[in-house]
Amino acid sequence: MAADSSIAVTDTLTKFIESCRWEDIPAHVRHEAKRSLLNYFAVALSACHDPTIEIAARTYRHFASGKQATLIGRRERTDILNAAALNCMGANVFDFDDTHIPTIIHPTAPVAPAVFALAETMATRGADFLLAFILGVEAECRIGNAISPGHYARGWHITSTCGVFGSAMACGKLLGLSQQQLVWALGTASAQASGLVETLGTMAKSVSMGNAARNGILSALLAREGFDGPARPLEGARGFLNVTADHPDLAGLVGELGSRWEILNNTYKPYPCGVVLNPVIDACLQLAAHPGLAGDGIGRIARIELTGHPLLRQRTDRPGVMTGRESQVSGQHAVAVALARGRAGLAEFSDEAVRDESLRALGRRVEFVDDARFAVESARVTVHLTDGAALTVDIDMARGSTGRPMSDADIEDKVRTLCAGGGSGINPQRLIDAVWSIDESFDAGAVMEFAG
Amino acid sequence: MAADSSIAVTDTLTKFIESCRWEDIPAHVRHEAKRSLLNYFAVALSACHDPTIEIAARTYRHFASGKQATLIGRRERTDILNAAALNCMGANVFDFDDTHIPTIIHPTAPVAPAVFALAETMATRGADFLLAFILGVEAECRIGNAISPGHYARGWHITSTCGVFGSAMACGKLLGLSQQQLVWALGTASAQASGLVETLGTMAKSVSMGNAARNGILSALLAREGFDGPARPLEGARGFLNVTADHPDLAGLVGELGSRWEILNNTYKPYPCGVVLNPVIDACLQLAAHPGLAGDGIGRIARIELTGHPLLRQRTDRPGVMTGRESQVSGQHAVAVALARGRAGLAEFSDEAVRDESLRALGRRVEFVDDARFAVESARVTVHLTDGAALTVDIDMARGSTGRPMSDADIEDKVRTLCAGGGSGINPQRLIDAVWSIDESFDAGAVMEFAG
Repeated sequence: MAADSSIAVTDTLTKFIESCRWEDIPAHVRHEAKRSLLNYFAVALSACHDPTIEIAARTYRHFASGKQATLIGRRERTDILNAAALNCMGANVFDFDDTHIPTIIHPTAPVAPAVFALAETMATRGADFLLAFILGVEAECRIGNAISPGHYARGWHITSTCGVFGSAMACGKLLGLSQQQLVWALGTASAQASGLVETLGTMAKSVSMGNAARNGILSALLAREGFDGPARPLEGARGFLNVTADHPDLAGLVGELGSRWEILNNTYKPYPCGVVLNPVIDACLQLAAHPGLAGDGIGRIARIELTGHPLLRQRTDRPGVMTGRESQVSGQHAVAVALARGRAGLAEFSDEAVRDESLRALGRRVEFVDDARFAVESARVTVHLTDGAALTVDIDMARGSTGRPMSDADIEDKVRTLCAGGGSGINPQRLIDAVWSIDESFDAGAVMEFAG
Repeated sequence: MAADSSIAVTDTLTKFIESCRWEDIPAHVRHEAKRSLLNYFAVALSACHDPTIEIAARTYRHFASGKQATLIGRRERTDILNAAALNCMGANVFDFDDTHIPTIIHPTAPVAPAVFALAETMATRGADFLLAFILGVEAECRIGNAISPGHYARGWHITSTCGVFGSAMACGKLLGLSQQQLVWALGTASAQASGLVETLGTMAKSVSMGNAARNGILSALLAREGFDGPARPLEGARGFLNVTADHPDLAGLVGELGSRWEILNNTYKPYPCGVVLNPVIDACLQLAAHPGLAGDGIGRIARIELTGHPLLRQRTDRPGVMTGRESQVSGQHAVAVALARGRAGLAEFSDEAVRDESLRALGRRVEFVDDARFAVESARVTVHLTDGAALTVDIDMARGSTGRPMSDADIEDKVRTLCAGGGSGINPQRLIDAVWSIDESFDAGAVMEFAG
């Protein structure tokens, strides 16, 4: 079972993190980090008054030691551990946050709130902030790579389990920990790695997410005080990798450090849905604007064929869903709402939208057609009308995929749209501007003033 | 891989916990619970100024929202989550706490500090307190039974991973949660279950222990506010049992609920060592008092034969250990120090004791002899003297084993001895009296006043 422990993963990774400088980070990596942060604020602002966050904020408030850090969108401050936890929860609660393609980790949610919380309490150059964030994501995603796909398949919520390492390393870098202290921080993080796929779709998931961000800070702070840990918390015989995966890839974990950057595998969702639905929704939005469906066109639809990779049917053939959350992975609902409303935002995947009987009726006309020649980023949607006419749209490469990433402008729009829907009342443009220029700032924590 | 999910473990366990009354608890179970609590205070008082606790207390203090709860032995108060965490760490840091034989879980450390912290903030009858504690231990150990021995063998620190469920159920019972809320609390606990064997022997272990106690409270408090979770967090396909064990025993988990009580499988250590050393130390303490070793007898020892079950050698043949912590599982050191000093308390397994060159020389004369006819609770120690004489002591059943449990008086002595060594300056007798009569109290939290 044990991996080849001759590869000193913990030692190599921490040496890299300790020694890496801002000058070592290529420009396109820096830019991708800012895109990740913008997407983070977008999704966190959309969820700032979600019931999950409301209950957690109300409960955690009893255990806040101060008001050092900002809760996104809530005009409320709390201590740094609670802020990290609650902001992480908010960024991830709708699963509308970023996706690291090789692992399906949502990289930013556990890392950004932790380093922002620290940055609110200490003078932090924006470049140092961004360096710490990038290295945290790097550690998180590389550890995730080493245990994928078996780790998630077994039932580990990989963003939670790997997120605590990302948070610990980002905070450790920002705090200027020595390599030995970074090893200790990994050890204390390893003792706190948790999160189960079984909890997805419930509020309980958000607790392991919040803990990932929170406990990463705690691991770094403890390490700074000399709180020690095992020498090989990752690759040790009973360390994190061997315990939570059957054949961890140690060589990959530390291969090409400094030349391969995992944040470049990060993607951003245009729609708050399972990613396999992206090409279908792209097609339906085009069809919704088609002259052939103008007027009472929707009423003349006889049936709708979805042709795509078999995963499309396997993951999303869910008729008759009952909640907004379920609708995020329902092909029937996604097709109906995108065709009928010409939009596919959070409002279209809400409990209210699911109760719309006309959408349910339209969804019943959806038929899945498996075709393994399609990639998961592609799909064909054909609308057959009652008069025998048919309209077809082919999507070769969905929006938000690595081949057709969201543009900077798309991500800015996502911030504006989700901010408007979340009820925070904040001005998104100041926040957008602050993130794009964060590496020139001498006070990275000040960005949070525009997000509060 | 998945267990037979037709057994509704979560549902059955939570119904039992919700409905169980004080009157349902047999007298000997109640008594064992008090013995567990006394042993808990003994070990926590011994460790209250240990470096692990000092660093953690200093770091956690920055994140305390108030002073509602007592830190054992430290003349210091903090909020209930931090108190639960730090008191749990203290009780377990030397691995001198209780042992549930079927699982090697240390049951009390994650549960008692959580319910005591809650009890310090609300009017709590002692009987209700003890009922909650017993049910928390019951849940924790039954979940542990279901995944043993594979779970620990794979590398999970079972006290940490199962402890959070025990804490959650004890706190949920004390808070009067409904059955649905108890299910939710199990769900949120399942998302927080963590802890790795790789961290043993380092400070990092204490963090997962502290989290178990802390996060159990949090799970119960969140559940009370309606924070939901999966319906089957334990036995679900990707729930805790299936993810962390290969063949979980669901039937055993809920068999004989209300008639079989796991706390009756709890034992208390007479010495701060791996339990396989207990019969060896018993024998050596008898030999140390033998007239044949009086005067310069120790100097005349040529060699020492330890005969026992092969596990004795496998677990404890460790010559030349460098730290007090390592010495706790070293047969060479245990034999030498017990023979030479006639004692086997914490001072005899300290860094100072390990540095004693005369003990190291004596330890080099130890020889292990495997004999599978011996049970792990038994051993023979033969001291061969330079003049050809030999002294032998056979121990059939070690002190502290289930067959020869520590007496109530032994446990009281353990409280007094460890309290005196821990430097808290508290009066142990008042605490001992308060624990023995806790079920007659109308304010269970007041016990902590005698432990602070």
